[in-house]
Amino acid sequence: MQTPDFDSYPIDHQLRHVEPDELGVCAVWDDGVVTRHHALWLRENSPDDVTTHPVTREQALQLVAIPAELKVAAAAIDAGGGLEVTWTDGAAPSRFHPGWLRAYSTADGEGPLSLPPRRIWDARSLKEPPRFDGADEAGFGAWLEAIHVYGVAILENLPPDPGTIEAIPSRIGPIRESNFGKVFEVRSRADADSNAYTAMALPSHTDLATREYVPGLQFLFCLQNGASGGDSLLADGFALAERLRREHPEHFETLATVSLVYANKAVSTDYRWEKPMFALDAEGALDEVRWSPWLRAPLRAPVETVDRVYRALRSAFELGDDPAMQVRVRLQPGEMLGFDNRRALHGRTGFDPATGERWLRGCYVERDELYSRLRIMARERRAAALARAGS
Amino acid sequence: MQTPDFDSYPIDHQLRHVEPDELGVCAVWDDGVVTRHHALWLRENSPDDVTTHPVTREQALQLVAIPAELKVAAAAIDAGGGLEVTWTDGAAPSRFHPGWLRAYSTADGEGPLSLPPRRIWDARSLKEPPRFDGADEAGFGAWLEAIHVYGVAILENLPPDPGTIEAIPSRIGPIRESNFGKVFEVRSRADADSNAYTAMALPSHTDLATREYVPGLQFLFCLQNGASGGDSLLADGFALAERLRREHPEHFETLATVSLVYANKAVSTDYRWEKPMFALDAEGALDEVRWSPWLRAPLRAPVETVDRVYRALRSAFELGDDPAMQVRVRLQPGEMLGFDNRRALHGRTGFDPATGERWLRGCYVERDELYSRLRIMARERRAAALARAGS
Repeated sequence: MQTPDFDSYPIDHQLRHVEPDELGVCAVWDDGVVTRHHALWLRENSPDDVTTHPVTREQALQLVAIPAELKVAAAAIDAGGGLEVTWTDGAAPSRFHPGWLRAYSTADGEGPLSLPPRRIWDARSLKEPPRFDGADEAGFGAWLEAIHVYGVAILENLPPDPGTIEAIPSRIGPIRESNFGKVFEVRSRADADSNAYTAMALPSHTDLATREYVPGLQFLFCLQNGASGGDSLLADGFALAERLRREHPEHFETLATVSLVYANKAVSTDYRWEKPMFALDAEGALDEVRWSPWLRAPLRAPVETVDRVYRALRSAFELGDDPAMQVRVRLQPGEMLGFDNRRALHGRTGFDPATGERWLRGCYVERDELYSRLRIMARERRAAALARAGS
Repeated sequence: MQTPDFDSYPIDHQLRHVEPDELGVCAVWDDGVVTRHHALWLRENSPDDVTTHPVTREQALQLVAIPAELKVAAAAIDAGGGLEVTWTDGAAPSRFHPGWLRAYSTADGEGPLSLPPRRIWDARSLKEPPRFDGADEAGFGAWLEAIHVYGVAILENLPPDPGTIEAIPSRIGPIRESNFGKVFEVRSRADADSNAYTAMALPSHTDLATREYVPGLQFLFCLQNGASGGDSLLADGFALAERLRREHPEHFETLATVSLVYANKAVSTDYRWEKPMFALDAEGALDEVRWSPWLRAPLRAPVETVDRVYRALRSAFELGDDPAMQVRVRLQPGEMLGFDNRRALHGRTGFDPATGERWLRGCYVERDELYSRLRIMARERRAAALARAGS
């Protein structure tokens, strides 16, 4: 039996010749491409019920239960054009769908995460956050994709109710509650436990840099914006970091290597974390920015390092508030701003609470939920295309 | 005005001499220790109301608003034994509490995260998970600390109600909901979307390696355990990784550098992530293990790398199920197991649903919430000690 996943790969190429080699199977395809498949890799991914649990679709046969010296006894192309493998340990032969085998065995095609590439922007390449119609199902899907691709996007035309801040993000996945609640209220108040809950101008920043696990997505829903001031400012933290890397490589290096300490202390909570401002992946690409002008605890470092860090921080923060790197938008009631909180920076101009009400409601969701939704949307498109092709 | 935080540092040493130097202030203490303090560091951390928001205790004066060329005009020891600094830009002088200044300016004392050190264990050094009494407030606090220190700990004597799984972890901080719900039911069922929801034996593993952000803490509360089998198995993933680093450095290296792909595909969700099994911090110490015997998607790598990875995986998984590295415990109704899901491995022996009921309820919380709770508990102890000393 093959699970839906194994069957849902398009067959763009046919196997022409297969034979065992010293590590597993060597396959030649109709376009001349040669792929090699390790015996244990094939066995562990065999779609049969003993190896792959037919309901959970997870591995049911553990790697440690497969003989370490397992070899391919014979390989053949079966009647369906798939790869049939016979094993040296006497287990039942395995069959592999040709579309699946090809998709997982060449470097071309989408990567394992199946996500569209990000697009880095500044004020020249992005005049305002992409906008989508919240009353339209396709608009919702396009908004989600734009949050990943641009790091910022607006969904408009939503019910101007307090509950909208939970209803819309919940369609992506579970809301990630924090010590500021499941939903937080962004309005000026006297007992503020965060600068966000004052009427102060807020320079460009990411939220909750004080945590080991900084929430990946943030949503801000506008209910009222009648006060003078209070415009939203957005910047692409990855673009800022890359510009710093080009123009001030010594500052970039400092901020990618020296740990800063972030702290958010309140009466009943004490959140802190220690990490460089820029986190890079194994290839040196930006993975995360923690842009925290006002949640830094005293830096612990030799005084010479302190000097170097302050020069780098000043350079970065000045860039973060540079209009050439920002888009400015005035949220209207019924509009929801979604952004990647480990990439995009947000801020606001100060506002005067005496001139009117400004009330946003916010919440967090993890990037993982967005990625899963984007893949499910892609799977539905693929299934629809296959159905059209088959009809 | 000084905020409680600035005042709550014990004064163990007195300032003897202070004077401006080229970067800020040089201070000599009564034990001969010399500390140096950068001008911008001092100014940014000044406890006055203009610099530090008196309510939120966050920076109110932004770094970019402080002159880059700010210098210390004069430094003196004030009447309270603190440091008084006069600035070249004409701003009001700043005063720094001597206990605070000393705590933040030397490498001795606790680090910025203020957490007790972790203790790595195997079956010889830990015979069973530390146990604490859930009916006792001090037991609850000690249980929390043990979850951090050992990565595993049991709280017993809890109300054997389904709601206990939310009530106890919620005392630490918000529950982190996942696609498996806010609370998940670990019992055998026919429509399992995870191997956990079958009666299968589960080899040592961490949960949700399929996410970029793997939940930090897991709680499992036992309501029924009357079936034959179903014992819990626990291991210290950091100890396993370190043993692998000693005994098979080539396997450790492979698992710390080659990205594995994790996947958990269901009808309506598709979670995936790509990362090496072992994540190290900047000093090469273990930061996180993703121990996933059965949630790996097909590895994408050249066939020679595949061979190397499978040898390393087999070696690791065999070690993970080695009784010399495990403790085994049979959870009783009313007992809650808490563990660090990015460090500790958990598994279970298979059970026979025909012989009785086995029902656990589980949930996740972030490490950040635990760390905050541990710091608040320490702050309360410190405040109590200061009150005793003052009375």
